[in-house]
Amino acid sequence: MPVLVMKFGGTSVATLDRIRRAAKRVGVEVAKGYDVIVIVSAMSGETNKLVGYVNETSPLYDAREYDAVVSSGENVTAGLMALTLQEMDVPARSWQGWQVPLITTSAHSAARIEEIPTDNINAKFAEGMRVAVVAGFQGISPEGRITTLGRGGSDTSAVAFAAAFGAERCDIYTDVDGVYTTDPRIASKARKLDKIAFEEMLELASLGAKVLQTRSVELAMRYNVKLRVLSSFEEQSDDAGTLVCAEEEIMESNVVSGIAYSRDEAKMTLVSVADRPGIAAAIFGPLSDAGVNVDMIIQNIAEEGRTDMTFSCPTDQVTRAEKALQDAKTRGEINYHDLIADTDVAKISAVGIGMRSQSGVAAKMFKTLSDEGVNIKVIATSEIKISVLVDRKYLELAVQALHDAFELEKAA
Amino acid sequence: MPVLVMKFGGTSVATLDRIRRAAKRVGVEVAKGYDVIVIVSAMSGETNKLVGYVNETSPLYDAREYDAVVSSGENVTAGLMALTLQEMDVPARSWQGWQVPLITTSAHSAARIEEIPTDNINAKFAEGMRVAVVAGFQGISPEGRITTLGRGGSDTSAVAFAAAFGAERCDIYTDVDGVYTTDPRIASKARKLDKIAFEEMLELASLGAKVLQTRSVELAMRYNVKLRVLSSFEEQSDDAGTLVCAEEEIMESNVVSGIAYSRDEAKMTLVSVADRPGIAAAIFGPLSDAGVNVDMIIQNIAEEGRTDMTFSCPTDQVTRAEKALQDAKTRGEINYHDLIADTDVAKISAVGIGMRSQSGVAAKMFKTLSDEGVNIKVIATSEIKISVLVDRKYLELAVQALHDAFELEKAA
Repeated sequence: MPVLVMKFGGTSVATLDRIRRAAKRVGVEVAKGYDVIVIVSAMSGETNKLVGYVNETSPLYDAREYDAVVSSGENVTAGLMALTLQEMDVPARSWQGWQVPLITTSAHSAARIEEIPTDNINAKFAEGMRVAVVAGFQGISPEGRITTLGRGGSDTSAVAFAAAFGAERCDIYTDVDGVYTTDPRIASKARKLDKIAFEEMLELASLGAKVLQTRSVELAMRYNVKLRVLSSFEEQSDDAGTLVCAEEEIMESNVVSGIAYSRDEAKMTLVSVADRPGIAAAIFGPLSDAGVNVDMIIQNIAEEGRTDMTFSCPTDQVTRAEKALQDAKTRGEINYHDLIADTDVAKISAVGIGMRSQSGVAAKMFKTLSDEGVNIKVIATSEIKISVLVDRKYLELAVQALHDAFELEKAA
Repeated sequence: MPVLVMKFGGTSVATLDRIRRAAKRVGVEVAKGYDVIVIVSAMSGETNKLVGYVNETSPLYDAREYDAVVSSGENVTAGLMALTLQEMDVPARSWQGWQVPLITTSAHSAARIEEIPTDNINAKFAEGMRVAVVAGFQGISPEGRITTLGRGGSDTSAVAFAAAFGAERCDIYTDVDGVYTTDPRIASKARKLDKIAFEEMLELASLGAKVLQTRSVELAMRYNVKLRVLSSFEEQSDDAGTLVCAEEEIMESNVVSGIAYSRDEAKMTLVSVADRPGIAAAIFGPLSDAGVNVDMIIQNIAEEGRTDMTFSCPTDQVTRAEKALQDAKTRGEINYHDLIADTDVAKISAVGIGMRSQSGVAAKMFKTLSDEGVNIKVIATSEIKISVLVDRKYLELAVQALHDAFELEKAA
């Protein structure tokens, strides 16, 4: 029988009633003839509670014990979901990560999936079991210890199972009903997309449109797993939600598919850096060592052997970045007159695979912002994305103006 | 290095502070030179919460899923205890039941321990690990599913580990500081016992002195594991608490070691039963089938082919017992004039291995009660126990009078 993977996030299994509602959705797919693999998160709030216990017990915790503790929430949901399905006369059983086994690397709390043998679960499907309920987010290391895949890792579990079992589709049930052209709370004209390409979803996810864990999209792209994002709180039709799929399956699309934004970006400028070969490495090496996630980097034209270097990073890493640079200066590795942190900025990005074949997108974006009086502080571009940093007070205005300019309220 | 098993119950690990306090106790034993196996329960309240989820989801639950769900609380405590010990620079790691593995039968939710291979944990001890923190109450079936040992099963886990590893002692940390001659809330003269024999403890445990799970005492007796019951809430000396051990290790003891009681006993009398061979089986067969735990049984002298049959059972099983007997009467299997349930009784027992070699204990008990005007309704005796049913209003009076009569406030 064809296999379908269905993943339910924490809010979709937050109470016994919601687990029942999710189980009914599973029952519908079983009735259609699918063998279903259900991936469940912990009931919402549980993982945060457990992470809190670990942090309070041991701030510099042993990640192996962290994993043993925080993985337990998913086990509870998996068992309860299996029981709920059994009550509906759907043959089901639960599987913990080590029982599958979902084999990962030993990189505890951020493990990567190595292999998912299908024998155990397929043997049960062959015996008439219709639903394998698998605890998401967790696996087992070669040493036999429990591992976890990082926050949001259940999405990645789901895609990996879909790839391993050759599933027809991987449905991600969540608390939103799909992927939008932009945040509907900011632009009322935001439109739900029927389809979006993997590459676009990757850019949107990494830009803070937190619908899917980035790694799950990468994995889906690599194994060409059709991902569908849909709401567990609405009656569903077969074409509900948004399908994340290969570019080839999207016949027509707008040049720009969506406008993403991020509020928690900071702009940092090293003023008058002594310019010499290797200066970039001397600056960004220590930042990387300090765990600062540098996003955009701009180097202004050097004059008289000195230059200004600007970069962006998450606002909560500004202190760490300042210390790393100050230390490098003290050690004599770099030299600069001043370090200016501007935490009052936001990043706006236009994303679309159509940009590859169409010119003038950047020009249109800059003109739109200019017409609204929004000053652009930093620009960075990739093949399918143009990002700008602007004063945070212009965030909503900029998103709305760009959404209008690229006519995203209209389907292609 | 010698091995010590230390078990901490739910109240002893109810909060992170209490886990720290427990870890300090473990550190003291490590400093003495012991390799320690710590068995932990779930934080108090957790298991009840999980059991509640399962019952609400599926009243006639699949016991395999029940076990997968309710075992998760112990995993959390095990990881947190390992982290706490590491913070104290004690080399420790957690083990879930399947990692040891603690192999059990497949009787889910009431599994029995089959084997505990010591290789994995001993290999870590050899590498310098000083504490193995093991999630109590759980194991793994031959089919690779998670099993649990029944409520209170962590005591049994602890004793089984002590037997498997040849531990010098198994210390059970709980919320009382030992085993008393009787309930101190009833008799202020109640005295903590330094030592008590396995057989006596078994009688006390099954009589409702709920310090230890009965099975754990049986197991300790079979493998001659020295069990010590002590409080996790008090500063401890080496001879704190009560040692439960073989009779031979107790040099002197009182004839009677303790007075136990149970409030929730009911006395049921079948009036004027037609007496014939096989009548006892005809009465108690259906009761057993209905899950009624019959304790004492008394048959009065038959007159003219009819007799009165009296038995005791827990008060909450009275309705079930009445129905089972009524059904048997309807089916014509038994015949009686009346069925009288007296739920206003209590059971008082005197327990002591000294009774074996000393006569007159029963006579003294009956005279003591008679002197206080307490009417005895039913009597039952075993080799080391004399039990009576009395009106519940006399419970406190009877316990105090017997405690005084046998001078239990004085050590042997």
